[in-house]
Order: sequence, then structure tokens, then C-alpha cells
Amino acid sequence: MQRYKLTIEYDGTPFVGWQKQDNGRGVQDAIADAVHRFCGERVTVAGAGRTDTGVHALGQVAHIDIARDTDANTVRDALNFHLKPEPVAIIAVQAVDNGFDARFSATRRHYLYRIINRRAPLTVDRHRAWQVAVPLDVTPMDEAAQLLVGQHDFTTFRAAQCQAASPVKTLDALDVRREADAIVITARARSFLHSQVRSFAGTLKAVGEGKMTPRDVQRALEARDRSRCAAVAPADGLYLMRVDYD
Amino acid sequence: MQRYKLTIEYDGTPFVGWQKQDNGRGVQDAIADAVHRFCGERVTVAGAGRTDTGVHALGQVAHIDIARDTDANTVRDALNFHLKPEPVAIIAVQAVDNGFDARFSATRRHYLYRIINRRAPLTVDRHRAWQVAVPLDVTPMDEAAQLLVGQHDFTTFRAAQCQAASPVKTLDALDVRREADAIVITARARSFLHSQVRSFAGTLKAVGEGKMTPRDVQRALEARDRSRCAAVAPADGLYLMRVDYD
Repeated sequence: MQRYKLTIEYDGTPFVGWQKQDNGRGVQDAIADAVHRFCGERVTVAGAGRTDTGVHALGQVAHIDIARDTDANTVRDALNFHLKPEPVAIIAVQAVDNGFDARFSATRRHYLYRIINRRAPLTVDRHRAWQVAVPLDVTPMDEAAQLLVGQHDFTTFRAAQCQAASPVKTLDALDVRREADAIVITARARSFLHSQVRSFAGTLKAVGEGKMTPRDVQRALEARDRSRCAAVAPADGLYLMRVDYD
Repeated sequence: MQRYKLTIEYDGTPFVGWQKQDNGRGVQDAIADAVHRFCGERVTVAGAGRTDTGVHALGQVAHIDIARDTDANTVRDALNFHLKPEPVAIIAVQAVDNGFDARFSATRRHYLYRIINRRAPLTVDRHRAWQVAVPLDVTPMDEAAQLLVGQHDFTTFRAAQCQAASPVKTLDALDVRREADAIVITARARSFLHSQVRSFAGTLKAVGEGKMTPRDVQRALEARDRSRCAAVAPADGLYLMRVDYD
């Protein structure tokens, strides 16, 4: 048995998320099927993070164990061949020792949330960003974001179905910047709660349009009350960008 | 009658190009139909440039004449409403005088061609870029590009079906730069021949992989011989970015 670390990119639009659900196919299934077509083995594709329906990844990480004698580049090219025509690509494969676990060895996860702030609907960016028609002011959005950085009980920004043992997490960075008509929110932490980044994005959008102040966000955080979170931002704009390991 | 200048964005994937063809629907038709649904008028949507099947635009320009008494912002919002669910968006509308012609008043057109240079297939960028697996060296690509700038007979880089009166054009700029695993080619000129940018992109790709040298590109240009052009790059990577007017 050899363990391989896979770096994975996908368009989340046609999937029910990373994991299989009763109502459809997960990215995980697409990769497991490709492994089976490659070497006849039924493997578990253990991912670093479970992305929701419609959420994209440019740098998801997973590990698999394969009995067949092969090498990392062959695994990469064979999986890409067998994944066609699914919008899932194996960017890199690396042989790792059995101590490596995509989920538990991860030291940091990087997410990006992309808003296109304009009146016109999206065309080339459809399903790739959240179109917000009302003009957003980035300055208070970033100010509010800085109040969320650090170790906090993030109950306010946690989906009801979140399975994490504790709502206390340490958010290393949350930044908001404008790039022409795009607003880019980047988030970095060892781990995130379910819907945490989309909850942040929805709340920061409310700040950008003046419905909440940075002080309101601070109070919402301190309230530890899910009902104080603004409407959660849609999945289309969220990207799992990178997972770090020591 | 009031003339309006429209700035238009579209995903070219589902269209046969800007203009209607025997085999399908053009972006022009989608906009003309939206105008009809808005005000009941049958108008000609006169575009600055005819993009081919699958080519995208972030800043195509067209003009239309409307009899109905209305204003620019209403036209924009109404067309966007009536264009749904087509991947075409009216970014901006401006009332202009009747002397304005989207095609003939244009002083400069800007195109961008996007290559993703990696082994893995595309996912979120599928139909949005040309995936080239063989590693490309950008330095000779940009060197070759500079040899094409200026006034030349571009017969080598012109599609057989090109309807331009003359193959002599002045290319103002052609630049090649790398951004991580993307290679971005930008081109600027008053006007272009049919398939000129895709012909450049295909030839520069051949330079990047070492199949042609910059000197070969110079000789191909001087030969004024279509057969000396490398394979034309696919439509997926091409974007009409902007059209300038005085």
C-alpha cells in the first residue's frame, strides 16, 4: 500500500458538494470512481475539508491508499484521464508516508469569497461569483472583518448542522479588498466551522451596503446567536484555495 | 429616434458568434430579441467587432436606435431583464448622437488571449481558456510578439474567409506575460483581420514550446502565406476586452 496526497481543483456547480448525499453525487465519488477505473481498487478519498453544494476548489487536498505498484505522475495523469468529462482535475500527486492525513495533518486552510459588485447579471462568471447589485463600501467591510480575527466562539457564524465539537476557533486572517468591480474576501485558519466563510461573506456584504456597522458585527459575534448572522452568502462565490501542511 | 451605445459582456460558449449563422443563434439576435420584448421595436444591433463561435467579450460595443421615449439606465436594466437566462449582460448604456457608429467610430480594439499552461485539464476555467500541457517559455513568445507589432501585410495571420479589403493592418501592441500557470497575451489595434489574434496565439504557442523561433515568426510574416501560420488557437481563450472611441 502506498499513500498519495492529491491536490484537487473542481467546479462545484454540478456536485452536491465534496461528499455524496442522498440527493446526488459528490466530488469524492467522482475521484473514487476514477481510481477504480485506473487500478480496480475501491478506495476512500479522504479530503481536507468538506465543501458544500456549488462550492469550488482550486486547491482541495485528499489522500488515497493504492496497492498497485505505480508512481505519483502516473496516478495524476491516469486519474485526470478517467475523470473526464467531470469538471474535476488532479493538479498534483505526491507519494507520502502513512502518517499523512489530509484532514488531520492540515495546519491551515485558505478560502476565497468573490463578489462581483455591479448591476448587470454575470455571464462568464456565472456560478463563479456572487453578483451584488447595490454598491458596497469596502472600507467598513474590512474594518468589520478585522474584529472577527482571533480566537472566538463563532456560534453566530456557524450553520445549524455543523458537526464540529466546539464553536471556538482561531481565525488567523480575514481580509476584504476591491479589484475593479470585484470584491475579494480571503480567510485563513487552521479549520473552519460549517458555512463559516459564507456566513462572514453575507454579514460583511450587509456592512458594505450600510445595513450593519462594524460595531453591529462585533455585537453579533459576542451574542453567540445564529439569528444575529446576516443572510448566508451563496455557494457560487466560495473557493477552497489551499491547504497547508508542516 | 435615439441612438444608444451599449457596452456588452458575454460568455460566447452557447452562441455561433456575434452574428447569426445558418447553424444557430448569435449574441446579436439575443440582444435584438430583448430590445423587441422591451419596446416592441425590431432594431439592428450594430457591433464593433464580429466575434467567432465560442469567443467571449467583456467589453463589446454596439449601437441601437430606439423610437420609444426612455433613458439610458432604463434601457440597460430592461435589456438585462429581458436577456435572462442568456449569458449576455449589458454593462453600460449611454445616449449618443446619430454620428456615433459602434464599428466605424472605433479607434482601437483590445483583445486578450488566455492560456492555462499545465498538464491537468481545466475545471472552473473550462471554455474560458486554452489548456496547453507542454511547458511554454514566455521569453521567446514575447520576443516573437514584438516582431509582429507595427504596420504589416498580415496575410499569414488571416483566416481564408476574412472579408477585410486589405491584409495590411497596424498592430499597436502585442504582449505576452506569465501569471502563475496562466499565460496572458494582449493585443491592441484599430482593427483586426478575421482570426488574427487566434492566429497570433497559435503561432506564439509554437514558439513557447520551441517548435518555432522568433526568427521563424518573422519569416512567416514576411512570406505573406497562410500556410506558414501555426495551428490557430481555439476560441475558448479569446476575449474582446474593450473598444475605444474618441
